[in-house]
Amino acid sequence: MKREQISKNIVADLKELAALTSDADGAQRVAWTPTFKKATEWFTQKMQAAGADVWTDAAGNSWAKFAGESKECIVIGSHLDSVPDGGWLDGALGVVAGMGIGAYGLADKKPAKTLYVVGWADEEGVAFGKSCLGSSAVSGIVTSKDVLPLIHQENGRSFSDVWQEYGLDANRIGEAHTAFAKLPVKAYLELHIEQAPLLALAKKSVACVYGVCGCNRQYITFRGQQGHCGSPVALRQDAFIAAAQTTLDLREIALKYDSYCTVGNIEVKPDLTTISPGYCRISLDQRSIKPETMQTIVAEAKAAAQKHAQDGRLTVEFEPIWQAAPILFDAQLVEDCNAAVEEETGARHSMYSAPLHDAVPLNAVVPSVMMFAQSDPGISHCKEENTPQPQLEEAIRAFIRLAEKELGTSFAE
Amino acid sequence: MKREQISKNIVADLKELAALTSDADGAQRVAWTPTFKKATEWFTQKMQAAGADVWTDAAGNSWAKFAGESKECIVIGSHLDSVPDGGWLDGALGVVAGMGIGAYGLADKKPAKTLYVVGWADEEGVAFGKSCLGSSAVSGIVTSKDVLPLIHQENGRSFSDVWQEYGLDANRIGEAHTAFAKLPVKAYLELHIEQAPLLALAKKSVACVYGVCGCNRQYITFRGQQGHCGSPVALRQDAFIAAAQTTLDLREIALKYDSYCTVGNIEVKPDLTTISPGYCRISLDQRSIKPETMQTIVAEAKAAAQKHAQDGRLTVEFEPIWQAAPILFDAQLVEDCNAAVEEETGARHSMYSAPLHDAVPLNAVVPSVMMFAQSDPGISHCKEENTPQPQLEEAIRAFIRLAEKELGTSFAE
Repeated sequence: MKREQISKNIVADLKELAALTSDADGAQRVAWTPTFKKATEWFTQKMQAAGADVWTDAAGNSWAKFAGESKECIVIGSHLDSVPDGGWLDGALGVVAGMGIGAYGLADKKPAKTLYVVGWADEEGVAFGKSCLGSSAVSGIVTSKDVLPLIHQENGRSFSDVWQEYGLDANRIGEAHTAFAKLPVKAYLELHIEQAPLLALAKKSVACVYGVCGCNRQYITFRGQQGHCGSPVALRQDAFIAAAQTTLDLREIALKYDSYCTVGNIEVKPDLTTISPGYCRISLDQRSIKPETMQTIVAEAKAAAQKHAQDGRLTVEFEPIWQAAPILFDAQLVEDCNAAVEEETGARHSMYSAPLHDAVPLNAVVPSVMMFAQSDPGISHCKEENTPQPQLEEAIRAFIRLAEKELGTSFAE
Repeated sequence: MKREQISKNIVADLKELAALTSDADGAQRVAWTPTFKKATEWFTQKMQAAGADVWTDAAGNSWAKFAGESKECIVIGSHLDSVPDGGWLDGALGVVAGMGIGAYGLADKKPAKTLYVVGWADEEGVAFGKSCLGSSAVSGIVTSKDVLPLIHQENGRSFSDVWQEYGLDANRIGEAHTAFAKLPVKAYLELHIEQAPLLALAKKSVACVYGVCGCNRQYITFRGQQGHCGSPVALRQDAFIAAAQTTLDLREIALKYDSYCTVGNIEVKPDLTTISPGYCRISLDQRSIKPETMQTIVAEAKAAAQKHAQDGRLTVEFEPIWQAAPILFDAQLVEDCNAAVEEETGARHSMYSAPLHDAVPLNAVVPSVMMFAQSDPGISHCKEENTPQPQLEEAIRAFIRLAEKELGTSFAE
């Protein structure tokens, strides 16, 4: 089938999945819910109809296999789950693109390498607060020891209980890694919608993604003295003032070093209209693609918080939440990905990702690369998320070209 | 009895009340609790033993009457209730000073005017969220229509139910005003501990309080667009950034105009570490003693919030919570109060109050004035609240002098 037609079919399939798993507020494919199960069943039916072998692994990931001349293989995928009230393309795009490459691209030919299509489970971490759960299990990064203590964030049920309902055994999650480790994987490819408006602003449909930012996430807690709203302002030890000053400095640090910072969770005590806060805790998430920049922005953030604490006669404490080093994807795959973008669009365009993706844990064990499709408006995790159809089709065509390179086969022009 | 001995006796009584109604965490005379009842019973016993007529009015306020030559009268009081884990002097000081002036000062003499001592109920507003409840009822500012819909903020019980337990009928609260309006009150005098360190910093024991700040309290709500922590910082519409910028401007406005501002209640949405807030609501409490300054600071606050909303491509809304105009106490009573301070300490010292007090509703119906005793450390609503004994006794002696002037009688030197 021609590349152009495959791309159109993939868009049609994306709309079919959206119709099946969305309501008026957006996509509802939250992991370990009936709607998520509906999405996995749709995956199974589509792939079986296309002649693939289909199974669910021990981590709840949905797999389809299209055999090639060789056992050497490539894996194409993304995540099948969404946030509540999510977008139609976040995750689904990469899974359905892989499905279409198998179902339509390989309908009339056997590629040199074998193709595995995967729909990762629970990338969003909504249920148990752990992002990239399925892909981290397959990569051996997350084991039963990590998941057994988890509690469902909404209903308080244990991880084991929730998984049992979906036919999965939490004690056996490690078997997903054992099985994956036996495959001779030459490449993991993931197409994902950008979660920002950079491609739209650059008027580009698609980009090669050459790496993913590192992340340092911590709580910063200021403690002073709560005061009556009639106490003199100059004499207060107001923890929220120091937090506000620090937050504005953090933003300047992010801009100065072309990096990212988010203060998203704010807690003050006593949190009353008539009392100036004696306590304020803010969360800080900082990201950069450069390891040396990560060090700099984290150090400058600490210095800023300490300065404002000292100026306000407060104490300040730092509590690490999570950190990860920046990663760069496989150099040869990045070159192939750039070439695919250039062949389809006439020009190379590459960028890094600030958000985390399933390709990050995968990259720890197999050569990986990502491609981003434009987002317009560049917003994410909401029903307004979209890629206009011409840009979407062009991005999928570029991704098909990349798959062709790695599979060692050519679809018709 | 000599003024010096009366003062010492009053301090002893304050300690007796503290021992009776405090625990390791501070004073526990929260209105409409068994410990509050214990305080009112202590008031009754002490005043009956001193030969006064004692009763509780229809608003739950505790009264004692020491008859003078004339029915013309003065009222001395403050509130008997405290916040949870409160200080030993906040409220109690003014009530026990009045009790001591009656019990010890008038033990051997009949003054020209009649003395009423009052312990106001529920000044702190802990139970039902309404400050100065007893004094506002007596002043006719709060009626049964205002209190009947109130719900206990901790246990959810109705105002009527809670009051019934203390032998009070919420439907008859208005009778407290009717009774008070019949009294030919020439002055309401209130001694209170300062809730800030200004007197301690000025090394003064006591001050005449010539007025109380006006207050404008509102919510300011910024709405932008929530964003993933991987979205470019410069492109975000982060509601918390605008709130932080505005908060810092508000503080500068307060300092510039020698006024007060408190941002005490902060709510962001979605309040997650990985999402920049699309919504942030802050509370703002602004105070000044000057009506024209009140107008200026409220206008500049609005302009600051609008500027930062515009700069951040956000919307901003203002929702009024409460406002009150600044008040100045009765000019003749302020002169008498200043004179009393000067006679006792050798120098006049006067100030205004930023916090609200029972004297504010009283001042709406009878000539009123307040006196502040030093607080060191200048903190309030906590067990650390204190006035060192020499400064406490000096403040009480100054207050006794004021009472002598208004009662038309002289105690022994």
